[in-house]
Amino acid sequence: MDVTAGIVIIGDEILSGKFAEENAAFLLARLRALGVRVKRVAIIPDDVEDIGVTVAAAAARFDHVFTSGGVGPTHDDVTMAGIARGMKTQVTIHPVLEEILTSHMGDRMTEAHLRLAQVPEGAILVHGKDGAWPVVCFRNIYILPGVPSILRRKFSSIESRFLTAPFWIGRVFVGADETAVAAHLDSVAHAHPEVGIGSYPRLDDPEVVVIVTVEGKDPDKVQAAFSALGQRLGEAIVRSEPPAAVTPP
Amino acid sequence: MDVTAGIVIIGDEILSGKFAEENAAFLLARLRALGVRVKRVAIIPDDVEDIGVTVAAAAARFDHVFTSGGVGPTHDDVTMAGIARGMKTQVTIHPVLEEILTSHMGDRMTEAHLRLAQVPEGAILVHGKDGAWPVVCFRNIYILPGVPSILRRKFSSIESRFLTAPFWIGRVFVGADETAVAAHLDSVAHAHPEVGIGSYPRLDDPEVVVIVTVEGKDPDKVQAAFSALGQRLGEAIVRSEPPAAVTPP
Repeated sequence: MDVTAGIVIIGDEILSGKFAEENAAFLLARLRALGVRVKRVAIIPDDVEDIGVTVAAAAARFDHVFTSGGVGPTHDDVTMAGIARGMKTQVTIHPVLEEILTSHMGDRMTEAHLRLAQVPEGAILVHGKDGAWPVVCFRNIYILPGVPSILRRKFSSIESRFLTAPFWIGRVFVGADETAVAAHLDSVAHAHPEVGIGSYPRLDDPEVVVIVTVEGKDPDKVQAAFSALGQRLGEAIVRSEPPAAVTPP
Repeated sequence: MDVTAGIVIIGDEILSGKFAEENAAFLLARLRALGVRVKRVAIIPDDVEDIGVTVAAAAARFDHVFTSGGVGPTHDDVTMAGIARGMKTQVTIHPVLEEILTSHMGDRMTEAHLRLAQVPEGAILVHGKDGAWPVVCFRNIYILPGVPSILRRKFSSIESRFLTAPFWIGRVFVGADETAVAAHLDSVAHAHPEVGIGSYPRLDDPEVVVIVTVEGKDPDKVQAAFSALGQRLGEAIVRSEPPAAVTPP
């Protein structure tokens, strides 16, 4: 069985092109290596309603949801409020987060700092290996910060809990163009419904015109589809890489 | 009035991390420079149902929708079928596209080539400045290819039709941390509801701790919010850039 995930990137600054998006690419690569199939990435504004609707839909559809951004102390940080609204609960101050802030800030603690302790009511804290500020988790939703270096550290500290059976992938590098091999791919895809067959044209390589990938969770089925492709495409194949497991680095 | 857009990136190869996503970042930057506000990016699989639901929702909500990917000749290219299903129509061969293919391919024309002429019934062709293969447009949905170099060329050839009033943006570079300025930003944001105030922490700069952006479509309102921020933040400001129009390069 596939373990699935959705990613929700929250931030006007991404949609307006002011900052390049880095977190989706990082999460896609890591979840892939963990064996988790990401079925959707959404990039949405700092808007309470939109966050609520988008995150609630993802939480209902996928095993895990990861959000990025909108968790700071300023007026445009509305992720906690959005998730609370979408999940039909309210925002509350988490006593453990308040405690961490108080012990860190002492007398310098302000209203703005206290916003950092807000969570959707019912959220739990997931303490990762790095021992610092925990990740806030509401049901199957993991609420991560938007700053890329911090998101990477937080995710890495808890990622072992998402590890599942690996993907297996094989590749066939083809010297003929997509229209010439389409019927063969079609036929192999239909005969091997549990294996994903992808076809990707290359424009920058004089020898390899198309890369065909064969992938899935069952190594025997992936191997069978890979062998079928080898027979079908025959002399059009420039070279190939037999199926191997995709594993964490 | 804001002109809005949604972007739908279609492709298993992006979600599986096999290929880096380049088209969303390109479209976000270009639409921004054209004055168009992008309100959502979705990255979804090569799945007829998901494409239909996602694109139909975006077409109903936004002025323009741009899709990328899934328009080649192989079994995993299902964007046209997905959009047709979502928009309650069917796929048909467009006679002008068939004509272009026939004149180009002659006797070498195959079933796979003919798939390239499939469009949702009722689609129109938008011929750009580059004079080659047109962009297929169904109502407010522009259907672009996934290969980044081709997408960039196709979009550039038709982008003048999306040009609208520019965004104005000013920046204030602040030497204090977000919690120290949060109350000021909050107050200015509330007093200037038509101006977007964004606050972005920097971790890599010893001097500038937060970048605050002030933006909107009305230059006078943006200037007023920018001035108010200047007064509020006072000595915390390291430097600032007065509001200027964002224009195409």
